[in-house]
Amino acid sequence: MTQKIIKLTVRDIRFPTSLELHGSDAMHTDPDYSVAYVVIETDQGMRGYGLTFTVGRGTEIVVCAVEALSALVVGKSLEEIVSDFRGFYRLLSSDGQMRWIGPEKGVIQLATAAVLNSVWDLWARMEGKEPRKLISCIDFRYITDALTEQEALEILEKAEAGKQQRVDQMLKEGYPAYTTSCAWLGYSDQLLKQLCTDALSEGWTKFKVKVGADLEDDIRRCSLIRQMIGPNNTLMIDANQRWDVGEAITWVTKLAEYKPLWIEEPTCPDDILGHAAISKALAPLGIGVASGEQCHNRVMFKQFLQAEALQFIQIDSCRMGSVNENLAVLLMAHKFKVPVCPHAGGVGLCELVQHLILFDYISVSASLDDRMCEFVDHLHEHFISPVVIKNAHYMPPKDPGYSCEMLESSVQRYQYPQGEVWKQFKKQSLKD
Amino acid sequence: MTQKIIKLTVRDIRFPTSLELHGSDAMHTDPDYSVAYVVIETDQGMRGYGLTFTVGRGTEIVVCAVEALSALVVGKSLEEIVSDFRGFYRLLSSDGQMRWIGPEKGVIQLATAAVLNSVWDLWARMEGKEPRKLISCIDFRYITDALTEQEALEILEKAEAGKQQRVDQMLKEGYPAYTTSCAWLGYSDQLLKQLCTDALSEGWTKFKVKVGADLEDDIRRCSLIRQMIGPNNTLMIDANQRWDVGEAITWVTKLAEYKPLWIEEPTCPDDILGHAAISKALAPLGIGVASGEQCHNRVMFKQFLQAEALQFIQIDSCRMGSVNENLAVLLMAHKFKVPVCPHAGGVGLCELVQHLILFDYISVSASLDDRMCEFVDHLHEHFISPVVIKNAHYMPPKDPGYSCEMLESSVQRYQYPQGEVWKQFKKQSLKD
Repeated sequence: MTQKIIKLTVRDIRFPTSLELHGSDAMHTDPDYSVAYVVIETDQGMRGYGLTFTVGRGTEIVVCAVEALSALVVGKSLEEIVSDFRGFYRLLSSDGQMRWIGPEKGVIQLATAAVLNSVWDLWARMEGKEPRKLISCIDFRYITDALTEQEALEILEKAEAGKQQRVDQMLKEGYPAYTTSCAWLGYSDQLLKQLCTDALSEGWTKFKVKVGADLEDDIRRCSLIRQMIGPNNTLMIDANQRWDVGEAITWVTKLAEYKPLWIEEPTCPDDILGHAAISKALAPLGIGVASGEQCHNRVMFKQFLQAEALQFIQIDSCRMGSVNENLAVLLMAHKFKVPVCPHAGGVGLCELVQHLILFDYISVSASLDDRMCEFVDHLHEHFISPVVIKNAHYMPPKDPGYSCEMLESSVQRYQYPQGEVWKQFKKQSLKD
Repeated sequence: MTQKIIKLTVRDIRFPTSLELHGSDAMHTDPDYSVAYVVIETDQGMRGYGLTFTVGRGTEIVVCAVEALSALVVGKSLEEIVSDFRGFYRLLSSDGQMRWIGPEKGVIQLATAAVLNSVWDLWARMEGKEPRKLISCIDFRYITDALTEQEALEILEKAEAGKQQRVDQMLKEGYPAYTTSCAWLGYSDQLLKQLCTDALSEGWTKFKVKVGADLEDDIRRCSLIRQMIGPNNTLMIDANQRWDVGEAITWVTKLAEYKPLWIEEPTCPDDILGHAAISKALAPLGIGVASGEQCHNRVMFKQFLQAEALQFIQIDSCRMGSVNENLAVLLMAHKFKVPVCPHAGGVGLCELVQHLILFDYISVSASLDDRMCEFVDHLHEHFISPVVIKNAHYMPPKDPGYSCEMLESSVQRYQYPQGEVWKQFKKQSLKD
């Protein structure tokens, strides 16, 4: 049955998270977690839902970019798209005029992610199962020096062995997760302690702490959390790009005694050679380097891998060009033997990325060594099919699709600036 | 006298250049040369003009981003901005919410360029001369492993010697230029021949040809142009990111007999290690690698230099964060001993970048070896103070400011979609 996409809508949805400093870190001190939320509709009445994550101001720019891309989607049939998904990906990412304002980076790439996420959602709902012909969705342009189509195929074919066993295992145990909810930068020590105690009792064993604003604070907070979780649980630290290269090495060395598994985003997310230098300097301390949530395309990840700059690859479901581009990165990471530990949190990132990391385990890496997926316990209540966490594991989603359909009531309430929540803020601030 | 900026306007101006394939290349096959055009106004009635260059669709997204940045500019005094220009640069590039949709790349970086270009224009008009305290305009974040503030200062101090002599020389002779106007990809051989003949008679000695779409075509076109210009004039080739790494090496090797000085943008502009591999492979053939017009920030240029990936650095006045960020790149290029040959053309790029390259010669590099600035003979008639080319040299601009104020009549006529030119197209296409 051919389904023609006849409509695309996009809305600017913002949650006033800055009020309580949820999500605060060394560079994003007052985020209002937000999404550009896309719904596509077919002539048969089917819908696909997609989004990209943002942190407040500027979401309207991404919305504007989605509207610009809309002309490339509306009028096409789903069949036409998925029969040459590679070509469609390139159409969106390489439009002869619009590529100038990227290419494949920043606002236009975030918008591409939102649009393509909705297409994947629609496709998955139609098929009711994991789509095939995955290789044909990947644009290998600019990465053939690291991974050819043939190599990609061989990786997938090799992972056929034991696949059903891994599916069963995931259905039973779920995919291991770590929590970032205990130690945002803006939280007090008291709150941090309380949240750690709660998390431990819920079965969490891996914890991430935000660092980078003040060294004395970091030492106190890392010491406190290591004390709370004990020597055998896992601690990660995250600087959100706060440092220069030399500074990163000095600062992290001073936190080494708390045995972090990794330092995340020590410096500029574009600095491949900088991350390589930091990796080399920290290796003797047993600390790895992780990055990726602001890594904007497969070409950047390719280089991070080629330069041995990262020991943990953090893919993101909304920063790059949707599933298409993430597939390329999963396959490259496998070839270069670097574990993938996705970035999540935000709004809807957990819901989306669980699909990718389950796919990685079942169909690519076949390994859980050094692997875990981020979890943040916020804003899931706005989704129709929120993630299910059991004993610190992501339980595989049961509903068809890409899991990012939001409650229409939430969309209405938080739409910016006309939703009820934002109208109320405006009234209050006028009163103040 | 304190001047407070009280208003910022931004307009979407597009020229229908795709009709005649001016500006066509292997990746941008039908560009409509465009700008997001910014005017700021002070409470004393002074104005500053800035722009960023785009190629048609998507300009409205950049306009939307400029509007978002406007809140960070309007209400500030020029004095307040320039007394801590580094801080102001960081305010724009690192807003705690908006940085998420960059950071420092793509749409938001283009918008930052347009806004800051208008501030530099206003400042230069006020001062009536080259501004001082240049170092304090540079944000050294993420580049201190390649260039410290102290090193930057030493470079500028060293270049004090012979400065007046170089100023006099530039006033007399101008800065050497090359032309891209003869050989756009979409031009016929006939047209190419005619344009070469004309250019030679006007004194041009350096010519760039677009390549990358079809090897046989490239061989024919390169052979033709080499024949036209003779063995002693300079030929450059430009693939506009068309190839993968291996493909670039093979393809350019087949064009080596036409002795190009450089291959420009052989592959993805983000691929530092890829450019390094291409550089290494082509070095024995005497062909350098040039890139930069889509290099989005100082951290990327830093790595291109560290990796010895480029033999020619092509800065752009509108892709990075205005003069502030370009200063950082000029100083790094000098330290790494790589010549700067700016990208120009488009709309207003020549007008803007002439200031930067004159500054490079007079105050940084003090050398013309292997250096030249791109020139494209299009759309200058829309500017109040268009560039002056004499004997294939840029003659220094005489009016104060950053030279990108447009004729209001042009702005009105080409504004998209409401300008007369675009309304007419719409009527015509409705008729067809």
